[in-house]
Amino acid sequence: MQNNRKIKLFELLNNQRGRKKFKEENKLIVLFKPENIFYLTNFWGEGIVIISEQEVETHTKLVVPRLEYTRAINTSKECEVVSSDRGIALSNTLIGLIKDGSIVFSDSDYFEIINKIQRKIGRKNVIIDNNLLYALREIKDTVEINNIKNASKIIDKLFEIATKEIKENTTTEEQIQSILVFEAMKLGARFPSYQFTSNPLIVASGSNGSFPHAETSDKKIKSGELIVIDITLSFNHYISDATRTFGIGKITDEMKEIYETVKTSQENGIVCINNTQDFTDVDACCRNIIINGKLGDQFIHSTGHGIGLEVHEPPWIRPNFKSEIRENMTITIEPGIYIENKFGVRIEDSILITKKRNRDNGFDYINLHSFEKELLII
Amino acid sequence: MQNNRKIKLFELLNNQRGRKKFKEENKLIVLFKPENIFYLTNFWGEGIVIISEQEVETHTKLVVPRLEYTRAINTSKECEVVSSDRGIALSNTLIGLIKDGSIVFSDSDYFEIINKIQRKIGRKNVIIDNNLLYALREIKDTVEINNIKNASKIIDKLFEIATKEIKENTTTEEQIQSILVFEAMKLGARFPSYQFTSNPLIVASGSNGSFPHAETSDKKIKSGELIVIDITLSFNHYISDATRTFGIGKITDEMKEIYETVKTSQENGIVCINNTQDFTDVDACCRNIIINGKLGDQFIHSTGHGIGLEVHEPPWIRPNFKSEIRENMTITIEPGIYIENKFGVRIEDSILITKKRNRDNGFDYINLHSFEKELLII
Repeated sequence: MQNNRKIKLFELLNNQRGRKKFKEENKLIVLFKPENIFYLTNFWGEGIVIISEQEVETHTKLVVPRLEYTRAINTSKECEVVSSDRGIALSNTLIGLIKDGSIVFSDSDYFEIINKIQRKIGRKNVIIDNNLLYALREIKDTVEINNIKNASKIIDKLFEIATKEIKENTTTEEQIQSILVFEAMKLGARFPSYQFTSNPLIVASGSNGSFPHAETSDKKIKSGELIVIDITLSFNHYISDATRTFGIGKITDEMKEIYETVKTSQENGIVCINNTQDFTDVDACCRNIIINGKLGDQFIHSTGHGIGLEVHEPPWIRPNFKSEIRENMTITIEPGIYIENKFGVRIEDSILITKKRNRDNGFDYINLHSFEKELLII
Repeated sequence: MQNNRKIKLFELLNNQRGRKKFKEENKLIVLFKPENIFYLTNFWGEGIVIISEQEVETHTKLVVPRLEYTRAINTSKECEVVSSDRGIALSNTLIGLIKDGSIVFSDSDYFEIINKIQRKIGRKNVIIDNNLLYALREIKDTVEINNIKNASKIIDKLFEIATKEIKENTTTEEQIQSILVFEAMKLGARFPSYQFTSNPLIVASGSNGSFPHAETSDKKIKSGELIVIDITLSFNHYISDATRTFGIGKITDEMKEIYETVKTSQENGIVCINNTQDFTDVDACCRNIIINGKLGDQFIHSTGHGIGLEVHEPPWIRPNFKSEIRENMTITIEPGIYIENKFGVRIEDSILITKKRNRDNGFDYINLHSFEKELLII
């Protein structure tokens, strides 16, 4: 499987506009990101992968620090593991493996390492391309889809558990978070790292819900509030991401109205997949409902993103951002409205794009979440 | 507090060898890493910080994406928050805030952003320095120390819980992990992101223990095995890190002997702090015990690292790596021996360096962990 991915990767590279001039050259792909290393070697850990187009099936090298050597040997597939000291020694080992006369495509744009490679093979022969693997990774295979489906099912169970565990004026956001993390881990889920938040989940009640990236706090969940629960988790390294907003006790008509606007927006965005070949239309279908409700300025983020080995990866679903819809992409659709210092509403599903439809010019899809979207009052 | 840190930062910068030539210039420090942004603004999230030496107390700018604006306003201290669109727009906002004739010190070495800054103010006026903030961050203040102490206490409680929850031939590694994560979160702990592992903890029994970075699995913990439990967690963003190895049921004499070697090594390393001013001696004190036991080749990693806002940060405790010991540093000491495909032993404490001693030429310290190190058989 790993070798097939490598072959496809070079095919994609050779067919890219502007890349054809390199067709006959000795191309190397050098990867640093743990997600990319896992995708092409099955090893998740610290290391560098070097793939040569000339020897794609026989000579992929996975360079790892000594303390990871045996684990890399045991878990990696279709590659040769090379042990090295860490830090500068690791990058020197890499440089030693790059032949003169090569062209290097790298997913890292760190100055130091790129400069070193440039000094060896010449400045113009090093091509930094952070999107190199995404063209491949954004189309999921059956194994990947099944992992994402499992992650989605776990999230649905957690929404169920949350509705039972929240006791108004008693439970805190953190308590709900701890319970959900515990239950998820028992079901085999993990919480992928995201450097910009320190909490594994978003559990945001009352005015905390007005922050799209709220930090879960020790605040009690109170009657009369809305609560946003945004769950991102992985199963066998593959991520699903979904959000529900619940009402606690007696909530205001304004809250109900805004909830309905977000729900209509989100459903409109999902259905839109049937009728378009570009994600920018999906964004517009969500956004226009909210703009028509005179709340466009309160929808302060994009409509969605791809999910897979990373929480946020291509394709992107943004305003005025052309992005082709294709079979077996997995994405989120997650409009939200945020009323500053009062409350927020967000509804999000992970969606699998399935077949291209003969009619309507769009795509079929499967919503990976079955947890209901009618406003639930706890 | 944030302004004091900024003033100290420029003092340090101006006193660095080779930096004095910039003394009279308009210096800007531009920071991208979330840990550094938090350290100087109290905001944890996505953003860029720009600090001008000329206006250090009045004009620190924190540029954040629109969806983070209000949260940044509410949590940041001693800075001005600027809202911007994301992606390229964010880096363009940054470029607009950099005045011609400035010298920029950056903690990011991303090619794209560095090239943009270079195009604006000239190649030689951009200085990439990943270590810029570490010189400041490696010396902890009282608030930071108290957070690390609290994190350490939670870890000690988790070791206690682990010894009670492990039932030989019944409990799996993952079950123990779930329980420990749940209990830790209830005590206010969080699990900082570390991109090279997918599990929050290391719970590694039997042959899994022979991998320093083992992934916690669904393997049952069996009689006759050793189990390595390595816990890294944070309290108010500050991290502690400790490891204990336990025996399960009847273990071999070889296991007991190796355990004693690691224990002697670790204790020897800690005591060594009293007698030296350089961490490389601490490494040698640990390593020599293991080398004398003819197991030097099985100690396949460094002796320790600084802890703080990151799990691994300066100072480094490595063989032949000069690194000055100073008051109020917080570090780990964690020798280990790994017998391939059989078992592993690691013992780790987080340690606070306190005062310089008048005698013996070394430092006093506090071991932040009180959980015992005698071999416990569960």
